Amino acid sequence: MKVYGDIVSGNCYKVKLVLAMLGISHDWIHIDIMAGETTNSAFLKRHPLGKIPLLETPSGEFLSESNAIINYLAAGTPLVGQNAFSYAKIQQWQFFEQYSHEPYIAVARFINKYLGCPTDRQQEFAAKQAGGHRALGYMDQQLSMTPFLTGAVFTTADIALYAYTHVAHEGGFALSGYPALGRWLSLVAAQPGYISMHDAARAQGITL
Amino acid sequence: MKVYGDIVSGNCYKVKLVLAMLGISHDWIHIDIMAGETTNSAFLKRHPLGKIPLLETPSGEFLSESNAIINYLAAGTPLVGQNAFSYAKIQQWQFFEQYSHEPYIAVARFINKYLGCPTDRQQEFAAKQAGGHRALGYMDQQLSMTPFLTGAVFTTADIALYAYTHVAHEGGFALSGYPALGRWLSLVAAQPGYISMHDAARAQGITL
Ligand SMILES: N[C@@H](CCC(=O)N[C@@H](CS)C(=O)NCC(=O)O)C(=O)O
Ligand SMILES: N[C@@H](CCC(=O)N[C@@H](CS)C(=O)NCC(=O)O)C(=O)O
Repeated sequence: MKVYGDIVSGNCYKVKLVLAMLGISHDWIHIDIMAGETTNSAFLKRHPLGKIPLLETPSGEFLSESNAIINYLAAGTPLVGQNAFSYAKIQQWQFFEQYSHEPYIAVARFINKYLGCPTDRQQEFAAKQAGGHRALGYMDQQLSMTPFLTGAVFTTADIALYAYTHVAHEGGFALSGYPALGRWLSLVAAQPGYISMHDAARAQGITL
Repeated sequence: MKVYGDIVSGNCYKVKLVLAMLGISHDWIHIDIMAGETTNSAFLKRHPLGKIPLLETPSGEFLSESNAIINYLAAGTPLVGQNAFSYAKIQQWQFFEQYSHEPYIAVARFINKYLGCPTDRQQEFAAKQAGGHRALGYMDQQLSMTPFLTGAVFTTADIALYAYTHVAHEGGFALSGYPALGRWLSLVAAQPGYISMHDAARAQGITL
């Protein structure tokens, strides 16, 4: 397996987490978005939408979209559930992540951490806070009832949502009001094979 | 099966299409968002995020997120692919839909068709056009190579993307520049069991 990505992007880090937890050997090809490496013709030939993460299988097929990639890598393992309904619940949380969580929390983090919250983005940054807290509150409500998002078992739903939630403070989101969510973050970090974003970046020679 | 939804919402119409194509008997409970029916306490007890569509299974379990629902309803059928990689490709297109298509095309349609493009939303409406066309161009590129989004076989990826693409003109998107996409729209509408949004709405007593 080959992965094109940047560890500090939560969408890419999800893929790294699954590879590490399942012990799948792979080449990680670092892609620098700011240097235009998703928009050059070599990359666009692989993925016309110009986004990372991108998976290349041993037979040379490409798969994009972080959550599709992690579910594929985990196919046949308990990480994608025990039956059609549990897999559906995993997908429910992942579509929630892409629609109601990432567009607020990941974007606020990007504006704050990578752009330094410039004046012309401050209004957008502020506008992201309510939606982000709505998503965090919804997760916290579920996690006050079950240890993991879909129930008793750790799945790719937890991995998908861990990626940007554990760095939500970098987008200005205080997690102190979400006690169940805080416990869940520690539980995820205690899973066998877990690697932190920091350590994964260091292994690529990137200092955060 | 019970579905809470509003047929004229593309996200809900996806669910109707799969139910019709697979001949699954169900109760459709019409929910009027504008009348606050997703924010009252009875609905929030079923789904704390207050969104439709929402599926209730015969055993009383709830499933939200349109694409998770259609994949669940189609589990075990060719609509969700033949193997792990084809299912992954289906999910790839569905995550693309929620992240890079719906937020532009469905939102532009909502502003234009349901709000009548009021002055204070015109800037937002205009800002949706580029992203929407980027998504349509990406689909057209794929559909100029394969009849359906993931290849030779019609799947829930096509259903997910058909829902808002076939009404994209209501969001101000002219489809004339996308010939392959136009052919694909006709192909989807020719699938066995297909029901138009118009006919499905009429069956609910709703006139469009
Ligand atoms: N829905 C996609 C989002 C991927 C995405 O937006 N990736 C960003 C980095 S986190 C990117 O490649 N941005 C470059 C661009 O959009 O041009 C996924 O989950 O993989
Ligand atoms: N990601 C969700 C989106 C659902 C969604 O946004 N539904 C809209 C109607 S199309 C809704 O319920 N809006 C009411 C609200 O958000 O309060 C899905 O695919 O099901």
